[in-house]
Amino acid sequence: MPTAQSNGSQGTHFFPIVHSLKNYTRRDFDGDIFAGIITAILLVPQSIAYAILAGLPPQMGLYASILPTACYALLGTSRTLSVGPVSIAAIMIASALATPEISALGDSVQSALILAAESGIIMLMMAMLRMGGLVNFISHPVLAGFTSGAALLIIASQLPQLAGLKPPSCGFNIACYQHYLQGYNAATLAIAIAALNILIFFGKPLSSLLKKLKLPLTMVTGISKCGPLLTVFLATLAATYFGLQAQHGVSLVGEVPSGFPSLRLDFIDITKWKILLPSATFIALIAYVESVAIAKVTANLRGEKIAPNQELIALGAANLVTAISGGMAVAGGFSRTMVNFSAGARTQMAMLIAAAILSVSVIFFSAWFANIPKAALAAIIIMAVFRLVRIRHIFHTFNYDRGDGFAELVTLLGVLVLGIEKGITLGIILTLASQLRKTSHPHIAVVGRIPKTEHYRNIKRHAVETWHHLLLVRIDESLTFANISYVEDYLADELNRQPNIKHVVLIFTSVSDIDTTALEALEKINQSLQVSGKTLNISEAKGPVLDKLRKTDFLEQLKPGKAFFRTEDAAKELG
Amino acid sequence: MPTAQSNGSQGTHFFPIVHSLKNYTRRDFDGDIFAGIITAILLVPQSIAYAILAGLPPQMGLYASILPTACYALLGTSRTLSVGPVSIAAIMIASALATPEISALGDSVQSALILAAESGIIMLMMAMLRMGGLVNFISHPVLAGFTSGAALLIIASQLPQLAGLKPPSCGFNIACYQHYLQGYNAATLAIAIAALNILIFFGKPLSSLLKKLKLPLTMVTGISKCGPLLTVFLATLAATYFGLQAQHGVSLVGEVPSGFPSLRLDFIDITKWKILLPSATFIALIAYVESVAIAKVTANLRGEKIAPNQELIALGAANLVTAISGGMAVAGGFSRTMVNFSAGARTQMAMLIAAAILSVSVIFFSAWFANIPKAALAAIIIMAVFRLVRIRHIFHTFNYDRGDGFAELVTLLGVLVLGIEKGITLGIILTLASQLRKTSHPHIAVVGRIPKTEHYRNIKRHAVETWHHLLLVRIDESLTFANISYVEDYLADELNRQPNIKHVVLIFTSVSDIDTTALEALEKINQSLQVSGKTLNISEAKGPVLDKLRKTDFLEQLKPGKAFFRTEDAAKELG
Repeated sequence: MPTAQSNGSQGTHFFPIVHSLKNYTRRDFDGDIFAGIITAILLVPQSIAYAILAGLPPQMGLYASILPTACYALLGTSRTLSVGPVSIAAIMIASALATPEISALGDSVQSALILAAESGIIMLMMAMLRMGGLVNFISHPVLAGFTSGAALLIIASQLPQLAGLKPPSCGFNIACYQHYLQGYNAATLAIAIAALNILIFFGKPLSSLLKKLKLPLTMVTGISKCGPLLTVFLATLAATYFGLQAQHGVSLVGEVPSGFPSLRLDFIDITKWKILLPSATFIALIAYVESVAIAKVTANLRGEKIAPNQELIALGAANLVTAISGGMAVAGGFSRTMVNFSAGARTQMAMLIAAAILSVSVIFFSAWFANIPKAALAAIIIMAVFRLVRIRHIFHTFNYDRGDGFAELVTLLGVLVLGIEKGITLGIILTLASQLRKTSHPHIAVVGRIPKTEHYRNIKRHAVETWHHLLLVRIDESLTFANISYVEDYLADELNRQPNIKHVVLIFTSVSDIDTTALEALEKINQSLQVSGKTLNISEAKGPVLDKLRKTDFLEQLKPGKAFFRTEDAAKELG
Repeated sequence: MPTAQSNGSQGTHFFPIVHSLKNYTRRDFDGDIFAGIITAILLVPQSIAYAILAGLPPQMGLYASILPTACYALLGTSRTLSVGPVSIAAIMIASALATPEISALGDSVQSALILAAESGIIMLMMAMLRMGGLVNFISHPVLAGFTSGAALLIIASQLPQLAGLKPPSCGFNIACYQHYLQGYNAATLAIAIAALNILIFFGKPLSSLLKKLKLPLTMVTGISKCGPLLTVFLATLAATYFGLQAQHGVSLVGEVPSGFPSLRLDFIDITKWKILLPSATFIALIAYVESVAIAKVTANLRGEKIAPNQELIALGAANLVTAISGGMAVAGGFSRTMVNFSAGARTQMAMLIAAAILSVSVIFFSAWFANIPKAALAAIIIMAVFRLVRIRHIFHTFNYDRGDGFAELVTLLGVLVLGIEKGITLGIILTLASQLRKTSHPHIAVVGRIPKTEHYRNIKRHAVETWHHLLLVRIDESLTFANISYVEDYLADELNRQPNIKHVVLIFTSVSDIDTTALEALEKINQSLQVSGKTLNISEAKGPVLDKLRKTDFLEQLKPGKAFFRTEDAAKELG
């Protein structure tokens, strides 16, 4: 995407934040500080929850919300993207760490650090090779199917936690499930139900209540986003006060080391790096694609611009920093970014403030985190990813474009049945193959003139004038090795049907390029038409195509056939 | 390619030869018998030479010219294609058999039979899955580069044989080469030089001499194609008469078993089948692509038609038959087919006659074949493949289309450096990737009206009328996930440049499809235009595209923007 990139280098610097802070006002700061605080309030429980979802110690989520968040704020082109632990990356980490190959190597913390570092390096390499455009090869339906599938996997992994159960291993044995469910923990379930109720109430019901009270919109946003923190706070209070762990077997987060993460580089292990490379590639790809998609949403709302290549640099650096500072892999989170944006964030300063709050909380409050019941975190995760499951979206897509709907469904089922990485690979291959198939079956129309105009349209769809000896054929695709034999066959069939045709005119309005294979085929078509006393002509060929044809003797070969400027000219002369 | 296939099932039968022989006349038979004899004269030395090139016993080439040739004549849609041993397939077999993995398994004859059988089965499976269209994914430049590369490898393998040398193993050591070359065999070299002279004389010099003598063209063809047989005959005579093997160390072909091949199925070995599968796939692909390309050349000259799927069946069956009857893998040969065609072959009967002559020669003359000097065969091979090396063709291609020229060069170098299979894979991947890259960078033009017409063209290339508040943009490609963000960036840049624009009209003449990702992006573009008080419009959308858009509320969202039937209407209303 040369346009976007040249744009990026004009409009932004290596530190886009400098540009944002050029005319920084008191009003901007007010917005940023409020948004920063609100986002931090959301970030604390999410960080711990997503670390646990990934199967990692809670501090790895917290650390991922300090330096990496600040790093992205300094380097990223989005003013409001909240980079830190996200649910999809967390389940991808969990799934990578759970493969027998990797779990056999032990030390999952080290593996997670390597995953983050490798993802970061991959993104930086993609930036160097200017491969930001690669994001275009994951279509929205594939991304939607992948997100739904991953969210369903997350929910399935968290449901047992609500009742204090371990993941089931019953297969299709119903009796086994009955026995399994009896092992539930009543106190855990009570906390989970209370948590879910608070979270649901802090969604729509509270917002509309506050709106009825005519509170300012930022206040409404601020208050309604405190749900997760309040849930954690109340659940922790209950757990501490009633000694739920010791007396009722409620499982808690456990000790979180106090203080700032120490920077370390002692996770270098070549064997592991090799084995983790494919998983890291997937994490890099998804983290990048999702982050840019989210960044674009808020940028569009404010008429700002995202530079894909600079995003690769910013996200890559953030992931390298998270690895060095003991955190998990990071990406831009959708809900946090929307909260940050609607709480009034004006610049990247908001995220710097959020990162500062996180570092303060790690230094002073980490002892408190130890008593958070895991069930409350599971409830927060489930509520957060629930809206990502969009089954009806598949029908919606299918209705508009069958191929896309099919790709979305296959990707979702692929993620559920084959796993995260194979599922998304399947989706990408499917769309690339269908893309190739489409270009190899170009739309071709025999056209005629709309009466009293110079306008030519498909004879199958419009009442048009045609001529007895003249065949006007519009080919709606560039001519390449992939589709030229389809065009050849189409012309042969059409000429078989209409043996009286004397002149064939190929209308090149949609032909942006003719490659070598296609040119050779056109020469053959021309020869065989000439043998049977017919002429081949072209019309409305674009400048670059004509330039290319003039390098060869093709236009000479056509004679008495011609290259007409307009189809109208061809119709007047040959019709 | 549905068109071609439906055509195939209409125009041909499972035995297309039945169709060819329907109105068979005495004149047809005269042409066929002459062509059959001439082709057989060429086929005998080629069969032995290509078997030796493949590193196989000579009879495997001869057997491959009997039943497989007849089998293709019965099933193929080309009336003149000469199927049998070919040089490119031979070097592919040699290269497969030379890999350490396969040579470690021993019994190269069995391996060659498995390669042929697997290639046949792969072609038949491709026919069942109607994958004849797959041939379109090998572009002509890749095929040309591959052919040049393979031909160079063949020449390199045969040159030492001319002097009775083994292949050198000197690397870059010049002293080693000096010592190596001293091991040449004088008698062998003498035979080779004589053979080359005869072959060169039987090329152009003899033809023009005979033409000057006003001989009929078929006679000229007939006589000038006897060069290889005469070469073999004279060389064998010399070898026998002077006892060249015993007294001067000239290496001969050696014993060729007499009589007809016995049918056998005892080459089934699962391990080998698995290991040989990739090589067999490449042989199947290349044999199919080259055969169809050659068949099309002669079919076009006579206005006949090739049915790709029936060709897969015919070539697949021929390769299964060659394996069962103890022969090497087969394909359509270019030089033989041209000889057959220009000697006057009218139907598949010519090849049935050639096969009959081959079987007679195997029964009666096989003892004579034992004394053929290998150097004479090497000379025949070198002269046959020399015209396949087309280095200048690369410059020709490069001049027309840089990407294609690059692909041709890379494929050629790939074949030489990495080997046959990796070389062609590299070429195919390169063209597919560049195909994807092209569709992701569609041609987009801002257009204006050619004065006094209703015709709109690129403002950069033509003197056109434009309007102050109106931006007419023509997108020359279907809108898909792969290119929509490029379009988005293009529009954003254009609007930045011209802030006074009030109405944007996207001209969809070349847009045959809009996929889900592109539709979502168009909706976003429309929203952001509306926010800044501009309208988005479309014009000249084709029927199928409008049908699809009407399934959504996109056209509603556009309001006050519109879908115009013609760009002219948009210019009148908005201009």
